[in-house]
Amino acid sequence: MGRVTARRRVLRIRDGASSYRPDTLAAEEPMEIRAGGRPLTVTMRTPGDDFDLAAGFLAGEGVLHRAGQIAGIRYCAGATAEGGNTYNVVDVALAPGVTPPDASLERNFYTTSACGLCGKASLDAVRTTAPWSVAEDGLRVGPDLLAELPRRLRAAQRVFDTTGGLHAAGLFSAGGDLLCLREDVGRHNAVDKAVGHAVREGLLPLRGTVLMVSGRASFELVQKAVMAGIPLLAAVSAPSSLAVDLAAESGLTLVGFLRGSSMNVYTGAERLRAGPLR
Amino acid sequence: MGRVTARRRVLRIRDGASSYRPDTLAAEEPMEIRAGGRPLTVTMRTPGDDFDLAAGFLAGEGVLHRAGQIAGIRYCAGATAEGGNTYNVVDVALAPGVTPPDASLERNFYTTSACGLCGKASLDAVRTTAPWSVAEDGLRVGPDLLAELPRRLRAAQRVFDTTGGLHAAGLFSAGGDLLCLREDVGRHNAVDKAVGHAVREGLLPLRGTVLMVSGRASFELVQKAVMAGIPLLAAVSAPSSLAVDLAAESGLTLVGFLRGSSMNVYTGAERLRAGPLR
Repeated sequence: MGRVTARRRVLRIRDGASSYRPDTLAAEEPMEIRAGGRPLTVTMRTPGDDFDLAAGFLAGEGVLHRAGQIAGIRYCAGATAEGGNTYNVVDVALAPGVTPPDASLERNFYTTSACGLCGKASLDAVRTTAPWSVAEDGLRVGPDLLAELPRRLRAAQRVFDTTGGLHAAGLFSAGGDLLCLREDVGRHNAVDKAVGHAVREGLLPLRGTVLMVSGRASFELVQKAVMAGIPLLAAVSAPSSLAVDLAAESGLTLVGFLRGSSMNVYTGAERLRAGPLR
Repeated sequence: MGRVTARRRVLRIRDGASSYRPDTLAAEEPMEIRAGGRPLTVTMRTPGDDFDLAAGFLAGEGVLHRAGQIAGIRYCAGATAEGGNTYNVVDVALAPGVTPPDASLERNFYTTSACGLCGKASLDAVRTTAPWSVAEDGLRVGPDLLAELPRRLRAAQRVFDTTGGLHAAGLFSAGGDLLCLREDVGRHNAVDKAVGHAVREGLLPLRGTVLMVSGRASFELVQKAVMAGIPLLAAVSAPSSLAVDLAAESGLTLVGFLRGSSMNVYTGAERLRAGPLR
């Protein structure tokens, strides 16, 4: 896991004084995801949990959602001209019967450290169909518990503390227990890694869970939550208009600006257990 | 420009009290970029300055760098089945003699609101070649002036104030004057919009300028700065390892954690004019 961070020399300036010192940075490297040997996408990610990232990416795209649909995951040797292994190319072997992404999907499949939508050729193809609905999920949580999650997420972030440069995605139970934390330079990769872990553990759909993210809530993050069967997405910062629209359409509860005891509930407020709420 | 923000109803919870009220969100919509009628990419962006975004994206990919290489830019009618105009599909007509992205590039061209690299099929193709070098740029700036830029950027951000949800990219002169500000839900789109404005104004290469961004400094942001001929990139937050590596290799000055009178200079410290510096 040494590749999660990297050391570089930096000139630090503080109030007019300056000195050179070593600094720890979040590592960023490209990773190519393949399914059945066919290249699908290149994403800039922080190395580590790469198999989770690949599985979560494919789940977000609707290619698979059960552990049994994955025959195996491996790093591809031969990624360099010399036949070496860069550990930057991951191939997911699909089980018999799993439909690989078709050519037109593949062609438009390209994504990045902050996107799961991009790569859909047509604007009409924005909404992929999840194999389940989150609308009927009976999750109920109190605002007090939600208000605790940013602190718990932050406390569990190891790499952020040394670099200040990583996003986090945490899966929590309805009782507020942290089920899985993943970090990455890209918000969307962090979510893919957390969901991918759950896919490989056979936990999808993630009914009754809360996904907490360190940054903003974009359309793609809502899409990834819906595809994983997660009924509540909470973000430290602002959502976009399209994120709110997709959450409303999907029956997902979307909470933003979750800071201290304050939060904004954009959709699905019925899941916030009454108490002080009117 | 009404589409830059959108209004939604939100349940606001503050210290146990709750109330419904209208909220202003940053708008997010997909935009397809075409060159000569051929689809290249779909990015999630905040509507506004769409032609700048398209031109800046193509500049970042090395397709063009001069205003004269653009024959015209327009919204495509017929984007919907009914033949309507969604204002989400932008076509850049290339001037005669400008080489359009070839098929293999196009196939791997897909990008997002936070990526300009992704979509390169091969990890070998990470570094596109800029038509100029920033290594010899004679820019010199004092740390005191750099320390002013976050405040100037923030003061010029109109939409952030109402939504809290937009990234900003500002182009500054060596004297600290704001030449161009662009906002977007995606950091990379904000940079593409600022660079695209400069392309269309015939200002590339942007010698002697400073690019200031509101978030982190990723590999792709360094790549976009280099492709635009910008010798100094300053970010409010952390850079990644690969961002530092590309900056070092390209001769670009990379400043991170620019807050108050403090900053970290990762590469090209010779451009920070001496004074208090040793």
